[in-house]
Amino acid sequence: MTAVAAARAVAMRPPLSFLFSSRYLFALAGAILAALLLPALALASEEEAIVTLTATVDQLWIVMAGALVFFMHGGFTLVETGFTRTKNAANICAKNLMNMSVGLISYWAIGWAFMYGDTAGGVIGTSNFLIAVGDSQFSTDWFFQVVFAATAATIVSGAMAERTHFRAYLIYAVVLTGFIYPVVGHWVWGGGWLAELGFWDFAGSTVVHTTGGVAALVGAAILGPRLGKYSEDGSVNVIPGHSIPLAIAGVIILWFGWFGFNGGSTLTAVGQDFASVIVVTNLAAAAGAIAAMAVSWLYNGKPDVGMIGNGALAGLVAITAPCGWVDAWAAVIIGLVGGGLVVVGVTVIDKVLKVDDPVGAIAVHGVVGIWGTLAVGLFADPKFGGPEGSLFINGDIEQFAIQALGSAASIVWVGATCLVLFLGIKYTVGLRAEPVEELDGLDIHEHGVFGYGESNF
Amino acid sequence: MTAVAAARAVAMRPPLSFLFSSRYLFALAGAILAALLLPALALASEEEAIVTLTATVDQLWIVMAGALVFFMHGGFTLVETGFTRTKNAANICAKNLMNMSVGLISYWAIGWAFMYGDTAGGVIGTSNFLIAVGDSQFSTDWFFQVVFAATAATIVSGAMAERTHFRAYLIYAVVLTGFIYPVVGHWVWGGGWLAELGFWDFAGSTVVHTTGGVAALVGAAILGPRLGKYSEDGSVNVIPGHSIPLAIAGVIILWFGWFGFNGGSTLTAVGQDFASVIVVTNLAAAAGAIAAMAVSWLYNGKPDVGMIGNGALAGLVAITAPCGWVDAWAAVIIGLVGGGLVVVGVTVIDKVLKVDDPVGAIAVHGVVGIWGTLAVGLFADPKFGGPEGSLFINGDIEQFAIQALGSAASIVWVGATCLVLFLGIKYTVGLRAEPVEELDGLDIHEHGVFGYGESNF
Amino acid sequence: MTAVAAARAVAMRPPLSFLFSSRYLFALAGAILAALLLPALALASEEEAIVTLTATVDQLWIVMAGALVFFMHGGFTLVETGFTRTKNAANICAKNLMNMSVGLISYWAIGWAFMYGDTAGGVIGTSNFLIAVGDSQFSTDWFFQVVFAATAATIVSGAMAERTHFRAYLIYAVVLTGFIYPVVGHWVWGGGWLAELGFWDFAGSTVVHTTGGVAALVGAAILGPRLGKYSEDGSVNVIPGHSIPLAIAGVIILWFGWFGFNGGSTLTAVGQDFASVIVVTNLAAAAGAIAAMAVSWLYNGKPDVGMIGNGALAGLVAITAPCGWVDAWAAVIIGLVGGGLVVVGVTVIDKVLKVDDPVGAIAVHGVVGIWGTLAVGLFADPKFGGPEGSLFINGDIEQFAIQALGSAASIVWVGATCLVLFLGIKYTVGLRAEPVEELDGLDIHEHGVFGYGESNF
Repeated sequence: MTAVAAARAVAMRPPLSFLFSSRYLFALAGAILAALLLPALALASEEEAIVTLTATVDQLWIVMAGALVFFMHGGFTLVETGFTRTKNAANICAKNLMNMSVGLISYWAIGWAFMYGDTAGGVIGTSNFLIAVGDSQFSTDWFFQVVFAATAATIVSGAMAERTHFRAYLIYAVVLTGFIYPVVGHWVWGGGWLAELGFWDFAGSTVVHTTGGVAALVGAAILGPRLGKYSEDGSVNVIPGHSIPLAIAGVIILWFGWFGFNGGSTLTAVGQDFASVIVVTNLAAAAGAIAAMAVSWLYNGKPDVGMIGNGALAGLVAITAPCGWVDAWAAVIIGLVGGGLVVVGVTVIDKVLKVDDPVGAIAVHGVVGIWGTLAVGLFADPKFGGPEGSLFINGDIEQFAIQALGSAASIVWVGATCLVLFLGIKYTVGLRAEPVEELDGLDIHEHGVFGYGESNF
Repeated sequence: MTAVAAARAVAMRPPLSFLFSSRYLFALAGAILAALLLPALALASEEEAIVTLTATVDQLWIVMAGALVFFMHGGFTLVETGFTRTKNAANICAKNLMNMSVGLISYWAIGWAFMYGDTAGGVIGTSNFLIAVGDSQFSTDWFFQVVFAATAATIVSGAMAERTHFRAYLIYAVVLTGFIYPVVGHWVWGGGWLAELGFWDFAGSTVVHTTGGVAALVGAAILGPRLGKYSEDGSVNVIPGHSIPLAIAGVIILWFGWFGFNGGSTLTAVGQDFASVIVVTNLAAAAGAIAAMAVSWLYNGKPDVGMIGNGALAGLVAITAPCGWVDAWAAVIIGLVGGGLVVVGVTVIDKVLKVDDPVGAIAVHGVVGIWGTLAVGLFADPKFGGPEGSLFINGDIEQFAIQALGSAASIVWVGATCLVLFLGIKYTVGLRAEPVEELDGLDIHEHGVFGYGESNF
Repeated sequence: MTAVAAARAVAMRPPLSFLFSSRYLFALAGAILAALLLPALALASEEEAIVTLTATVDQLWIVMAGALVFFMHGGFTLVETGFTRTKNAANICAKNLMNMSVGLISYWAIGWAFMYGDTAGGVIGTSNFLIAVGDSQFSTDWFFQVVFAATAATIVSGAMAERTHFRAYLIYAVVLTGFIYPVVGHWVWGGGWLAELGFWDFAGSTVVHTTGGVAALVGAAILGPRLGKYSEDGSVNVIPGHSIPLAIAGVIILWFGWFGFNGGSTLTAVGQDFASVIVVTNLAAAAGAIAAMAVSWLYNGKPDVGMIGNGALAGLVAITAPCGWVDAWAAVIIGLVGGGLVVVGVTVIDKVLKVDDPVGAIAVHGVVGIWGTLAVGLFADPKFGGPEGSLFINGDIEQFAIQALGSAASIVWVGATCLVLFLGIKYTVGLRAEPVEELDGLDIHEHGVFGYGESNF
């Protein structure tokens, strides 16, 4: 960075205030005029160039980060497909494609307005429905938000996989992406009441992941378990997914996309430290995978590959809220706890609560999303310019309390609205596929094809 | 590192301490001179720094966009593999890898010259064969063009899948990427006669997709249908692909890569509105998927997952020509029509024309490519700085006519040359595999392996 | 965005034309003062803005390139999974996930310190263990290095696939990423003795690929071949992988990621010619695929799809060392030789040395890594600002000798340490799985699941 050093040296040249004493005014005036105008003109054009450059660099980063977030849909699709059965593979692919599509149009029509429109008392936005193409900065902001929006609904699809009607899915994707998620987003990122209160969530442990996880819990609970999951004698059966390679490829795509998810949440680039955000994101993911491996090894005697994958995702979910304001060692701890928690969470949800979640989405996004949100109140260091304190850094308990309150409020909102939503769907168009459809697989009944056209006849 | 050099030159300016003790004009003049020169020097170095920064940011965006376009080959590979049968999976993978490789070398040797060399009457370029490494801007431009070039040939491979000799494929990939495609490219983007005429194609609905689609139509027609596709009694049989998950993963990769395909077609970044290009691209893809789902649901009683995937691609193909000059609402309409059109197109080509296209490439890229090209003449808004008018925006019919003419001219050129090309191959090295090869699968006969080594013996 | 705000404020300052009509020196002095100070102030703020912009653009490119390098883990995972058998698919996925995770934490704790810490005699770094989050430039540099670090260990996992204990893998990943690789890295990139000597390796043909390839050779040799690979009568059996589509998807992901691997090795962006690096990288990959196809076609009568894939990777490995300093024609030759060499290398290692390498990693990364390193001494053109000469450009034999020496030294270091490492593992926790585990597959014995849960019972 010698260029930087040289430029700094220039900036520090001494003031030239010694140049004062003349007897000939006019010539001097002309000289001064030239001295004033020429650099001023040049400066004006340079200033304009710098303003344009700054805007472009900001937009370039956020657009690239948004593209990475979009690609996470590929990851979600593969994780969900791999962790479920052959007979439902086409259905899961169709659901993910439609989630992206329906969610995108829903967020375009109403979601953005509810999230970032003029606030009604800090509770919900009220303007900018059906947005038009604006300038490049607006398009940048909007693109980054829309790719975020659809992820919350995708999380739900995993937990409700293998037994939900396709038409039910379409409806809830519209409502979740267009209304339920944007309200939480408005509270936290749209200048709403949680933002006013001092609640911090860098990239969405609460806004995206807890929202998705709670919706997944409500949906899966109302839906009931897959046929054969829980026997009448109380035993819990494992229903293995059909392709670990697809699932783990999906995990790696998600990890890759998360660099954009967290790193792009700086929202601008110039002068921002997105690189450090990505460093701690990466460390937490690795720590999550290691912890999940260790805990599953201790529990079950073998390192479970599905748990390792979910552990990496848990590390990522956990670091999503605090990624802008914690140091490397804290990221490792946050990831380790997230990875351990996901093994416990999956087990408790599956065996104690007996809610059937084929991919572990409730634990990964819901349970660990809460952990990540609270971790801000435990590990945030004021030196990073975010929250003014946290429990383990400077003994500040207040931030932790605010984080807990924000998390709880979001859970109540999402839980209550999703209860209405899923019960509404259940008693109108129907939520759950017929037993014969479920046994044969949703692929052939819902879509008229097999996911694997040559091996399923 | 000219910026660094300039900054250093400034930093090394002599100390000005000699200008201090005078009461006379000369000293003052010197002072004024210094006042004039110092900022001017500093400005010169700043201007240079800004020029360098601007160039780097431009190159950074186009290189990243080009990398995304390159990755679309992964998408094409998976779409084609997934929508065809197990026994040809290795062959399709080999064809896609070689398409990238042979196409890249062919475009390096001759294609770039035909496309962007000095024009011969607006018809074809004539200089810069076997290009050398130039400066960073040239490399940027060239990289973005070469990754585009190979996509046209890839489109063809899908339509001709499961029955074409590997050696035939190698030959046509060279000719298509090195000659047929560059000529259309020269007409539209290389300053050729269509550019002169006022034909607009932002990212290649005509140049890439119609070219690929028409070549696919000619190739598949000359080749004939797969054995068993059309029964003697006139019935049309469905030959399902072997992996919807691979195919839909491919669709998502293509959608992801398309952000680079369309967004990078700004060709520079600084001050460009690539973000809005990506926003309308995203909306059209979503609309295309929704329309294809709806139309296939109405037609067949079930939402067809393959059609949903092709609908998303159709939305993307449709928005490719107009993506720089249309508003959000128009993008949604363009995508919806594209998605509907692809269902109709696939059905007509399959059942009426009886041209066997295993992946629907002719409809997706050919039919919808024409639609996208015409859509410029229907929806382009002059406020975006492209065409001066269009039918639905300001009643301008002329642009629509030019778009139709350009599309027709490209179709005639590609159709005629591909006719010669494929017939030439057919009557020399042979185009179509032997029946026994086709029945056993091309994998074992052409490559001596099975795509799935443990399930195909 | 304070820089932008400041620039805007400066741009809006009022014209200073009122300072002209004075007859008094003080007013004039004030005017001159203003004339001098205002541009100086404006310049200072502009300089600051330019410095910040430059830093951000540099970081943006390296972070994006690093993300692409990270994604290569997805490519490695799919290549290794596809080229091996169904019964070990989950194990290979688990190994790759843990390689990324354990390697990342190991490099964070000790690897970076050994590679880039204060040097001890040019041999090893000695400071900066357990690094903390620093400024954005440090995080950028560190992120790019950590994603590189884990690739060397991944290479080994392919060669040792299908018969290695999971616990053995964990241990060697820690040592290789945390110690053996960083030492080579220190010699070449950390200012060590090879850097002092004038050894050039742009992106790691030696540092990453030869290191990985040699470790793979030692590991695979100590481990011994898979059961059934070599019959007692001396015949060599082919054990086909289970999924060419996954393997080739992996190759394309690796090719895509390599744009970041080589292109990001400029380490900064502003004023750098990363685009040309990517152009030659792309050409070499294409040439490698073509050569491998041709040679395998000539040898075996059919174009081998696995060889085509490995040929593309060989072209990439070969161009990795020289990619910053060679012209397009040289890149094509380097790629062609690399692609040819990999077919020969795979054959010799398999049939002559009888070292069982399921994915061809030793040939691709080891043999071709050496070729790429030597190619610097053959084709580097001084006009690109790297080595001062090379054999075929200006008859300079010295650079070639230095390249050979550096390659040899790295081979000796990695070979010796890996011998100790793998023998140490063998005689403590055990390196090789039991025959029954190998026959049943590592998935069920090591992880308690099947990679394909519905087709392996």
